[in-house]
Amino acid sequence: MSDSARATGYSAWRLIAEELRADITEGRLHAGDRLPTENALAERFGVNRHTARQAIASLAAEGIVESRRGSGTFVTGGSVHIHRIGMRTRLSTSLGDRHSAAGRVLESATEPAPADVAARLGIAPGAPAVRVEALRTVDGEPLALGTRWFDAARLPDIAAALRRTSSVTAALRASGIDDYVRASTVVAARHATTSEAALLGLGPGAIVLVTEALDTLVDGTPLQHQITRFAAQRVRLDIEHPDPAGA
Amino acid sequence: MSDSARATGYSAWRLIAEELRADITEGRLHAGDRLPTENALAERFGVNRHTARQAIASLAAEGIVESRRGSGTFVTGGSVHIHRIGMRTRLSTSLGDRHSAAGRVLESATEPAPADVAARLGIAPGAPAVRVEALRTVDGEPLALGTRWFDAARLPDIAAALRRTSSVTAALRASGIDDYVRASTVVAARHATTSEAALLGLGPGAIVLVTEALDTLVDGTPLQHQITRFAAQRVRLDIEHPDPAGA
Repeated sequence: MSDSARATGYSAWRLIAEELRADITEGRLHAGDRLPTENALAERFGVNRHTARQAIASLAAEGIVESRRGSGTFVTGGSVHIHRIGMRTRLSTSLGDRHSAAGRVLESATEPAPADVAARLGIAPGAPAVRVEALRTVDGEPLALGTRWFDAARLPDIAAALRRTSSVTAALRASGIDDYVRASTVVAARHATTSEAALLGLGPGAIVLVTEALDTLVDGTPLQHQITRFAAQRVRLDIEHPDPAGA
Repeated sequence: MSDSARATGYSAWRLIAEELRADITEGRLHAGDRLPTENALAERFGVNRHTARQAIASLAAEGIVESRRGSGTFVTGGSVHIHRIGMRTRLSTSLGDRHSAAGRVLESATEPAPADVAARLGIAPGAPAVRVEALRTVDGEPLALGTRWFDAARLPDIAAALRRTSSVTAALRASGIDDYVRASTVVAARHATTSEAALLGLGPGAIVLVTEALDTLVDGTPLQHQITRFAAQRVRLDIEHPDPAGA
């Protein structure tokens, strides 16, 4: 652990947790590997066992390691899902489903569009917009929380269709829209809020990858503005680049 | 603060910090806004002043807020840089420079390619590869740490050229390569390691957006494998999507 880090007053257990996390993320420890014992860590970092235990507990809370009774602590398999981001790829396609799944609708409402949403959808600020909150799970594990906004004048029944089909592609088709394309995607990362962590089943300090995206009709008409918060520990975003050969 | 969060034993100041962070990231508090006083926060959350102060201190450590002597604590401007990811966009182009800047080279070496790097570069495992570590700053603020790998047989002088030019485009041109394209990009997010935080000037708990990318010649020959760690609090990744009209 570096002196500069120590000098910030950052607690010893957090530094140890960071070192172990780096061992895992940088490939020195792999899924299924046994972590050094508390005693071994205490010796390696020159701390007491309690501090080493606290470091391990924090990694366990993040889901990076898991303690197995009687046999030690292991790096979790940490099934990581690849989510493709491209012009015509949908969440579910990239996860191997048939439809563009929206997941389970948690909440929906028709309400005045906030100024930034209205600008993205090309409607007047305060004009009615449909907001749909949904939770996407894969194999029972929460993967992403999505907030979608639609122009209520264009798609008044979209929330009901999403509840019925759990699929954006199917819900849009039911509204007469057969094709749409991704116009823009911006990616950021931040700490999960308390409610995001609760819904995504994440521990303290967990991170969300946040995508803000606009889908349009092929002619460029705005269709859907969405903000998705992915559990960073379970997702990689794979960005589609066009083939320079023009395929 | 939710009961479920409280039940995890998560400390009160972290919960308060999360709530305030959400106020900022979700737009209820904007850059330049004054944060409620310690007393007001203590009252709002039913904690003592010390706990409220700890929450503010942790946000200050992340660079999200800053205390100004005598006038209170404010949401920082937090200049956020947009980094474009596309087929032919380079870091510097997206930041408005003339070249594809690699930043200041911290370290370089020619060494046997690890198996995963060799596979990406299409060379034999253990064959010599040039590894270059660089730090990219914008307006004096550290933005990203990059590790680049090149086939040493193809580009033996690339490290020296990068040190000389601080530009990937210029360094490749000096090696006779006039054009290259992005073949793949995968984005993830995790906590910064201790050394990453030190080099990027980040506080405890800070997050890095990690991109793993392959650049190739137009004919698909692998050219450069790079892993970039962006300070998440200072960067948004803007993904380029092709125009469906084929422009």
